[in-house]
Amino acid sequence: MSFDKLIDRIKETKNPTVAGLDPAFSYVPEYIKAKYAHIADPLEAAAKAVLEFNCGLIDALCDIVPAVKPQAAYYEMYGWYGMKTFAETISYAQKKGMYVIADGKRNDIGSTMEAYATAHLGQIELYGKKVAPFGADALTVNGYLGTDGIKPLLAPCAEFDKGIFVLVKTSNPSSGELQDRKLYNKKGSPSGNVYEVMGAMCESWGEAVPGSKYGYSGVGAVVGATYPEQLAELRGKLPHTFFLVPGYGAQGGGGKGVAGAFDENGLGAIVNASRSIICAYKKEGCDEKEYAAAARREAIRMRDDICSYINLK
Amino acid sequence: MSFDKLIDRIKETKNPTVAGLDPAFSYVPEYIKAKYAHIADPLEAAAKAVLEFNCGLIDALCDIVPAVKPQAAYYEMYGWYGMKTFAETISYAQKKGMYVIADGKRNDIGSTMEAYATAHLGQIELYGKKVAPFGADALTVNGYLGTDGIKPLLAPCAEFDKGIFVLVKTSNPSSGELQDRKLYNKKGSPSGNVYEVMGAMCESWGEAVPGSKYGYSGVGAVVGATYPEQLAELRGKLPHTFFLVPGYGAQGGGGKGVAGAFDENGLGAIVNASRSIICAYKKEGCDEKEYAAAARREAIRMRDDICSYINLK
Repeated sequence: MSFDKLIDRIKETKNPTVAGLDPAFSYVPEYIKAKYAHIADPLEAAAKAVLEFNCGLIDALCDIVPAVKPQAAYYEMYGWYGMKTFAETISYAQKKGMYVIADGKRNDIGSTMEAYATAHLGQIELYGKKVAPFGADALTVNGYLGTDGIKPLLAPCAEFDKGIFVLVKTSNPSSGELQDRKLYNKKGSPSGNVYEVMGAMCESWGEAVPGSKYGYSGVGAVVGATYPEQLAELRGKLPHTFFLVPGYGAQGGGGKGVAGAFDENGLGAIVNASRSIICAYKKEGCDEKEYAAAARREAIRMRDDICSYINLK
Repeated sequence: MSFDKLIDRIKETKNPTVAGLDPAFSYVPEYIKAKYAHIADPLEAAAKAVLEFNCGLIDALCDIVPAVKPQAAYYEMYGWYGMKTFAETISYAQKKGMYVIADGKRNDIGSTMEAYATAHLGQIELYGKKVAPFGADALTVNGYLGTDGIKPLLAPCAEFDKGIFVLVKTSNPSSGELQDRKLYNKKGSPSGNVYEVMGAMCESWGEAVPGSKYGYSGVGAVVGATYPEQLAELRGKLPHTFFLVPGYGAQGGGGKGVAGAFDENGLGAIVNASRSIICAYKKEGCDEKEYAAAARREAIRMRDDICSYINLK
């Protein structure tokens, strides 16, 4: 009911990073695309090529990287065939021992949010059988709608031992337009800003799904690597909230910048890189058939970069 | 590149409402479920039953209701088979002349948000062919990430004549936890609250996709029927922003309460009801085989209720 399972895996691999599986079609090597060119429906062909691409990456990363984070947009982009690949990618990664964070940033209220929880983390009973529609281990969510949008996730998190990551301070340049805006409290006095309020709500929501081993609840926060000061500030203020940190690599954050996200044991955060890992073969300029090996090399480089700044044992 | 197409259809049908297609499995009549019970995979069986349910509703509503709003969660809940039903529902409704609002509340940044735009509103080129993965007419989105999360949608809206609805003030009880919080401006003076800032951003984003017939841009706002005062206040402050108004019916808002969302011509808003329409047969207590006729009766009742308070010609 918390992130204990993820943290166990981070400790086993001595690696607090997650590989983002964001398969834009231009990232897929040509030799893989060519295998499916005979299929009449281009969405079906592309979705199959993406699945092969992903499985190659997972095979190359599963013993050294604790988790993958498939980003839903890059699967919806291939229509329902893409969502089949999304489901098959999750299942394949889990079979290989990886923790899977479905990056969907889902948000809604009441019974609709329950439906998202069922879809991505839970099970649905249909025709007398219980099935897990997508069955990820964790889901990213957007808390703009308040507690009504988060509460429906907490029972499935507890029942199926899953977690959620709520957007708090995102990695993009314009994230401050709303998230950094200063607020009043109910008495009319200044009371921090929007992302701090959201962070405090994460701590509060997390009380329903406490961790038993490391002190981190099942309600985590997304905090961008591109804002190192806020990362360190939030780490101090949110002692039970595990962080998912995007923005390392292609977006500009480095190992030193993310160090503030971690606690004194080198835990408390997992850092994501997507493009820099899955497109490492393009940056290296190696043969495209070596794409998976290149991804592994970049994942090791990233792990060593981050671990040189933290105290993970 | 705006909501002109939707407004044309509202004027043709003299009906500013949209039917939410949120097919929880318990809403589907037993006689439809039974037809698919022989299918081995319960997700496939359920998704096929949902499609038949939806098509029956669309057939019964298409000449009197201008639009449908399938809610993505209720399709993802049936796994990728559900997303196939989502795509087929969109396509069927459009063939019947209805405007389709995909209710996904999607949100992300940069190229990931572009992928969502492609998935739901745009086209993707694969293997030399251009295809529309889901092809809705409009998409609901969450603006918590700021301009980086909205800008990628504006070009596809312009190119393919689509629209978006940004969450501004949602219909749920806890929406105020964040959305009603008071803000400072850059000079340190009080400057309204979170939902007002989001509303003002909608006006600003809409300048890139202006309307040519009715003055409403392609960037709309979601404003809940459960907060009548804010509806009227926002209608006054956001003259170019078309409203999607959830919360009528099952959530408690009525015709009088939503009247403030409309302009002096009875335009400027479309009011959604989901459960009260698609489950009307349960409330009526009629034979479940009459579910579509009952939905039509409720849709007419709702239309007449709302139109009795506004000036739509």
